[in-house]
Amino acid sequence: MESYSFLLIIAIILLSTKVLGLASGKISMPQVVGALIAGLILGPSVLGVVEETELLAALSEIGVIMLMFDAGLGTDLKELKTTGVASFVIAIIGVVVPLVGGMGLYMIYFPNNGDAMYMLEAVFIGVILTATSVSITVETLRELGKLQGKVGTAIMGAAVIDDILGIVVLTVVSSFTDPNVKISVVLLKILLFFLFVAIVGFICYKLFKILNNQYRDQMHRRVAIYSLSFCLIMSFCAEHFFGVADITGAYFAGLLLCNLPYVRQYVSRRVSIVSYMFFSPIFFASVGVKTDLRGLTPSLLIFGLLLLLIAILTKVVGCGLGAKLCKFSTHDALSIGVGMVSRGEVALIVAQKGASCGLVSESMFAPVILVVIVTTLITPILLKLVMSDRKSAEPAVQA
Amino acid sequence: MESYSFLLIIAIILLSTKVLGLASGKISMPQVVGALIAGLILGPSVLGVVEETELLAALSEIGVIMLMFDAGLGTDLKELKTTGVASFVIAIIGVVVPLVGGMGLYMIYFPNNGDAMYMLEAVFIGVILTATSVSITVETLRELGKLQGKVGTAIMGAAVIDDILGIVVLTVVSSFTDPNVKISVVLLKILLFFLFVAIVGFICYKLFKILNNQYRDQMHRRVAIYSLSFCLIMSFCAEHFFGVADITGAYFAGLLLCNLPYVRQYVSRRVSIVSYMFFSPIFFASVGVKTDLRGLTPSLLIFGLLLLLIAILTKVVGCGLGAKLCKFSTHDALSIGVGMVSRGEVALIVAQKGASCGLVSESMFAPVILVVIVTTLITPILLKLVMSDRKSAEPAVQA
Repeated sequence: MESYSFLLIIAIILLSTKVLGLASGKISMPQVVGALIAGLILGPSVLGVVEETELLAALSEIGVIMLMFDAGLGTDLKELKTTGVASFVIAIIGVVVPLVGGMGLYMIYFPNNGDAMYMLEAVFIGVILTATSVSITVETLRELGKLQGKVGTAIMGAAVIDDILGIVVLTVVSSFTDPNVKISVVLLKILLFFLFVAIVGFICYKLFKILNNQYRDQMHRRVAIYSLSFCLIMSFCAEHFFGVADITGAYFAGLLLCNLPYVRQYVSRRVSIVSYMFFSPIFFASVGVKTDLRGLTPSLLIFGLLLLLIAILTKVVGCGLGAKLCKFSTHDALSIGVGMVSRGEVALIVAQKGASCGLVSESMFAPVILVVIVTTLITPILLKLVMSDRKSAEPAVQA
Repeated sequence: MESYSFLLIIAIILLSTKVLGLASGKISMPQVVGALIAGLILGPSVLGVVEETELLAALSEIGVIMLMFDAGLGTDLKELKTTGVASFVIAIIGVVVPLVGGMGLYMIYFPNNGDAMYMLEAVFIGVILTATSVSITVETLRELGKLQGKVGTAIMGAAVIDDILGIVVLTVVSSFTDPNVKISVVLLKILLFFLFVAIVGFICYKLFKILNNQYRDQMHRRVAIYSLSFCLIMSFCAEHFFGVADITGAYFAGLLLCNLPYVRQYVSRRVSIVSYMFFSPIFFASVGVKTDLRGLTPSLLIFGLLLLLIAILTKVVGCGLGAKLCKFSTHDALSIGVGMVSRGEVALIVAQKGASCGLVSESMFAPVILVVIVTTLITPILLKLVMSDRKSAEPAVQA
């Protein structure tokens, strides 16, 4: 690669993800769909003008970290406590059912070939189906004007817990790839990670609380830079010392700061600007660049369509069942189930993680992308169908 | 390098540049001084914890590009036209005198060793002394409350022209490194570059003008992303097709958009956030990391101090003379001369550029850093001494 061509590559990525993002917005789809398609087109599937480089890999890693940090910052702990038990039950069943569904489909479709990792591969396909995308859910609910209602709050809470559960499950499963590692050690490391988050996080929380109170009226740039550094250090420590995914560290860094209102608002605004201006388009595009649709054989296409069906049904059934158990009406339970269908960046992150530890073959990216694109696309449509016959808690946003 | 350690390295750079930047702010120095010192400490001179990598080099290149793009965006063309002729004369003489002074010092201190490049090396040291740092000048004038006065406007105009002259001189000199290149070809390429800027720039200006008018009340993210992509493409084209520095392309991209008020304000705000949150600290630190102060022999230290003396005297005399020729009072001429003393990122960029094309030995970085740090430090102090006995045009900012 010529020494300056990375400037051109980045410009092409930024332009194409934005243009296709806007195009998908025009037809009422989330912009992330367009960004993924841009990556697909630039990558080996179509044009082949962008290839994976060390630089793009690093920039895209920073992109995911910022997305997860911002998701953590955006978490409303109070809202979470209110819906508490209901959200927890919805999230748990809503994780277990797709996990089992995905595993089952994989084991039926790809019979055991004697590979020592076979069970883990099946579990990983299940894990990919567990993670609801908070951002897409929120965006959809906001557009429908249902974010503050009872159903909306339950979905929000469940989506947040779902995220944490998904990350924990992902970490446990990822750690199994090294056959020398014992489950007990892995679990101990996870426990130690939580202890680390509790102790170091508490100290840092107290330090940031001082900044929060000192600069409440007039935030300073230093707060944003300290926070971003904190996030990067947490990401590094998670990977380096505890074998936990770096994005888990970033997410907890966000959670630790989400209760400091001034810090949270100031930092989230700046991180989201840095993210959408530069890093997250590179992340989305690089996912697309990694996806080789040329590998989508008829067999994989059929698998993708079945996976999609399982992805939709298991979330609706799992979350709906959880909601019914918590005494929601059948209509509300259906709405909650439908609201949890959308998969987004998290499913892609899990798939990438699986590929990087050798459990998910890169040929699986195409079916997963199919699931992400279609579930992302179908959630707003289904939610509108199910929810629009009831009165909104607040007026719907004019998009 | 372990695959995740870049996260830690970036966090360390962000934290240390900010902390030392704030520390230098505490003692009334610009924050850039602290950031440079942070890089020095992290680099081989002191701790040796950060080394140059391809990733850091790319991030720091993006950092300079963003700084120059934002400087271009911040240019006030109207203000420039008002002070017009005076600013031009001040800038021209203020570039020629330091250029000659720097060359002369080098030729006296390091007698001709028969190296074919000797004269070019001498010229390059002169070029390093030409560039006034706009950002540091503006910041200093704003702190003193003298930005809108007659003297302030003349300094601003001269600083902007000085920047353009410095970049043109830099480009001409850089192009000489390849002995096969003829001056006529180099000058033709520069002319073609200006033609390119005029034609492509005009078309893009017209396109951005549509966005400027369409979204005046409610800017959209797309405008910021298109602008940044435009800047990256201009940077790439400048280097790739015209042999002109990428930062020149970035600067002109900024100049082309600086006259669209809504676009300019929106884009500049976002680019400056992306820059100060991530890229420019990495740029400043990487300059420090490149500086090996272990190479500061007694002889180079003496050279550095002489270079510093020349740097201060030639700007004061050159710019002051220009101002006197344009009928400013002696006191105002002195103020203008002193206001132009500060060197900043541009001097470092020139030094780096010189090193990358083999004209400036890396051992010269230490004397140049000395000049940047001391002139940056001394400008606010001298300006305060010279200007504070007169009434301000507006109240001084409480720092």
